Amino acid sequence: MKRFLDLADFTREDITGLLALANRLSEKPEPQALAGKILGLLFFNNSLRTLASMQAGMSRLGGSSFVITPGAGTYQIETRVGVTMNGAAAEHVREGVPVLASYCDALGIRAFADGKDLEADLAETTFNAMAQLVDKPLINLESAMSHPCQALADWKTLDDVQVPRKGRFVLSWVWHPRALPLAVPATALHMAAMRGMDVTVLRPQGFALPAPIMEKARRAAAASGGSVHETADRHAALEGAHIIYAKEWGATSAYGDVDADAKLRASLTDWCVRDNWFDTTDPDCRLMHCLPVRRNTAVADEVLDGPRSIVLREAHNRLLVQMAVLYRMLKGDPQ
Amino acid sequence: MKRFLDLADFTREDITGLLALANRLSEKPEPQALAGKILGLLFFNNSLRTLASMQAGMSRLGGSSFVITPGAGTYQIETRVGVTMNGAAAEHVREGVPVLASYCDALGIRAFADGKDLEADLAETTFNAMAQLVDKPLINLESAMSHPCQALADWKTLDDVQVPRKGRFVLSWVWHPRALPLAVPATALHMAAMRGMDVTVLRPQGFALPAPIMEKARRAAAASGGSVHETADRHAALEGAHIIYAKEWGATSAYGDVDADAKLRASLTDWCVRDNWFDTTDPDCRLMHCLPVRRNTAVADEVLDGPRSIVLREAHNRLLVQMAVLYRMLKGDPQ
Amino acid sequence: MKRFLDLADFTREDITGLLALANRLSEKPEPQALAGKILGLLFFNNSLRTLASMQAGMSRLGGSSFVITPGAGTYQIETRVGVTMNGAAAEHVREGVPVLASYCDALGIRAFADGKDLEADLAETTFNAMAQLVDKPLINLESAMSHPCQALADWKTLDDVQVPRKGRFVLSWVWHPRALPLAVPATALHMAAMRGMDVTVLRPQGFALPAPIMEKARRAAAASGGSVHETADRHAALEGAHIIYAKEWGATSAYGDVDADAKLRASLTDWCVRDNWFDTTDPDCRLMHCLPVRRNTAVADEVLDGPRSIVLREAHNRLLVQMAVLYRMLKGDPQ
Repeated sequence: MKRFLDLADFTREDITGLLALANRLSEKPEPQALAGKILGLLFFNNSLRTLASMQAGMSRLGGSSFVITPGAGTYQIETRVGVTMNGAAAEHVREGVPVLASYCDALGIRAFADGKDLEADLAETTFNAMAQLVDKPLINLESAMSHPCQALADWKTLDDVQVPRKGRFVLSWVWHPRALPLAVPATALHMAAMRGMDVTVLRPQGFALPAPIMEKARRAAAASGGSVHETADRHAALEGAHIIYAKEWGATSAYGDVDADAKLRASLTDWCVRDNWFDTTDPDCRLMHCLPVRRNTAVADEVLDGPRSIVLREAHNRLLVQMAVLYRMLKGDPQ
Repeated sequence: MKRFLDLADFTREDITGLLALANRLSEKPEPQALAGKILGLLFFNNSLRTLASMQAGMSRLGGSSFVITPGAGTYQIETRVGVTMNGAAAEHVREGVPVLASYCDALGIRAFADGKDLEADLAETTFNAMAQLVDKPLINLESAMSHPCQALADWKTLDDVQVPRKGRFVLSWVWHPRALPLAVPATALHMAAMRGMDVTVLRPQGFALPAPIMEKARRAAAASGGSVHETADRHAALEGAHIIYAKEWGATSAYGDVDADAKLRASLTDWCVRDNWFDTTDPDCRLMHCLPVRRNTAVADEVLDGPRSIVLREAHNRLLVQMAVLYRMLKGDPQ
Repeated sequence: MKRFLDLADFTREDITGLLALANRLSEKPEPQALAGKILGLLFFNNSLRTLASMQAGMSRLGGSSFVITPGAGTYQIETRVGVTMNGAAAEHVREGVPVLASYCDALGIRAFADGKDLEADLAETTFNAMAQLVDKPLINLESAMSHPCQALADWKTLDDVQVPRKGRFVLSWVWHPRALPLAVPATALHMAAMRGMDVTVLRPQGFALPAPIMEKARRAAAASGGSVHETADRHAALEGAHIIYAKEWGATSAYGDVDADAKLRASLTDWCVRDNWFDTTDPDCRLMHCLPVRRNTAVADEVLDGPRSIVLREAHNRLLVQMAVLYRMLKGDPQ
């Protein structure tokens, strides 16, 4: 495996194989598997779980890592092509990225969506411009539309708590003070579809996921025996749900328009997951969220602190599944 | 040892045992003792010694570490309970802390006093709220009222330079442009009392240490055969002193009131340790300070650059005593 | 080798020996050579290559490192002597530097020129004040006037692409929105002179390198059979060149005067290396730059993306030559 960029690049069997490897490494640790290997980590955006779990994962396999954070100890880095660099950025990705790649055995890059041009973000313009400069194993630590490490951890979590393969998975928009990117909702949707689940995207008017994302998920569902629906009707969506996967994202009907987005979300503060969201779900329905989560705006304390929440398990699984990805990339297929 | 949070949680014998272990590891290094172990480090506040020595200490024992700094590469993290998170903080400690704990074998947390509500800070409200979320070994890297790693290094330093157990230890307030927290003075006082020394807290009017801190130290002194006094009379305090432990802290009579504090300290700029402070001390009297120290405001160049200063030894001892703490926590009691 | 601070401290044979060691370690890795060794890294200024390659280099030799960045997670650090510290800096180098040195086996420090007083910068006042506080092996990660790791990587790159020892090396000033320090041009000049090359410093009026730098390079050239010239005539300088080494620096005729510098450089935006700069060079002439480089202000896309550019090779060589320096410092001379 040379690249781990998008769930859609893999078959269902590839993914279940990675999850099996994660479980095996968890039960039978291999603390020297990646001795001498170095992971480079390039973070254009904030991180807690990814930053800590990637470093910890390399350490648990005997390897090491370094972290580069443009704008915090490192030069600001330009991503646009052909620009005359007379502004704040002192370095261009066309130099910075291959240089970092040349220092390590695998590189991870986090670069969120620009959030201005939906077409450009759907095309992964920024991330792909960097990815094509890297000739080493490359991991997507969250790009404009993809967060495959999170998806892998979420899939493992669903397996861990024995959510039925064909269970009802509701990806629900929740409130946030401002527009957040589409990477996690797009990838969670794809993951659940690929797992073969009965998936509903529940979101207010104006927040529908872009058609290419929905289509891609529908194709994954078709291949796995699952299904994908969308609705703005919370009552209908939640009935019988096995999972409420809460996520904040920006208004897709006003992509990149901060004022229009703010106007649209102003009246939606009741999109905060509370205990009563579970009134008509399956009795064992669980709450998932990729974290960080804003308490009492996106999800209420009563839910996060209650038995339905499996958000900490998801976060811990980040470590375990990423170790499998790193192992597969840097050590090859175990025999 | 599962937690190293406060000197007062340990007996005198526990502490001398840790110091003996620090000496043993210094003489007979065990470079693989913690192979495969990971220390997570969560810094809500600036650090130089703690940050570097904790990482170096893990390395010297064969382990590794990762660092998370909210607000610098990581989301700002909310510590208050029950709040509606629609401000700057994107993550709550109730998620962030247990997640980080799940990635490592031991966690260290630095979270200074809020400096607004003395009762809340004395109760370690913020730190304790985090500590109760951690099911791994936990190290206090400085909380509102406690800095046990510093105290351990200071105790070792007193031993190293053979200050008599019953010697005179003067904890003296010194000037700083603004109010600093009480953690170090409170812990240095407790350490010296616990070591059995004759301790005097020398501070101007308005800067007395809070009664609970003084009481706690008096109990420790009683158990160790030491004593604890306080005074604003510099001449009386310094006479015969074996140690001047200089430290800056805020006006406790106006806790959290920036203007009142500034007014109180405006006339106190002569509280800067100079050579003449040693005129009536024991001839071998030494200067201690936890660092960082502001030169020529808190302590004069002539003292810091002279033979009385043992501040660098204190700082180096941070590495050695923390290695003992990590070893005891992560490897268990040596047989 | 206890210190790697300035190329001029070494003989030509010392340097070629280090380059041979770099090649040997590249061909026959020694992944445990520095097991248990710790490198401390103190960065007063931004870094990408140095930060990543130093950490990666220690890892590749089995050692580890820690990073301290004043002002980003660590206190701001005062470098001036004798000052009354009532400003922003909470720590002085006289404490901070020896403390960090006491935690590691070798220390690297980056501290750019203050850029105000040319005499002080030429005297390396700031860096030397820190260097004298360090009793461990010490590496200059770029000081006011010296960047020896870069020079070593550049020398190796010249060897790698088989530039003749007596080839024509043109160090050319290029445009940048503001004044940059002299460390890289001074060191690249010295490196090429020491390698025995025919060196020309090409720069506009007002940007001549200071006389002590030119004199030092001329002495190195004399010892190696090379030569050093300077000119503002681009056409004359580039004719027959084997290397164009592009570099931005501030107006030395108005050192520290931001307005005068800006005025001087305002009309110099055509000092951007384009394909036509190579019209009269040797046909195999290459472009070198230490990076980061601003595209289309200092060097045009057409050159950086074309076959003449060897900037990525230079950057990768940073890793290899620094591993040699670390090996020589921490393991001693290989027998």
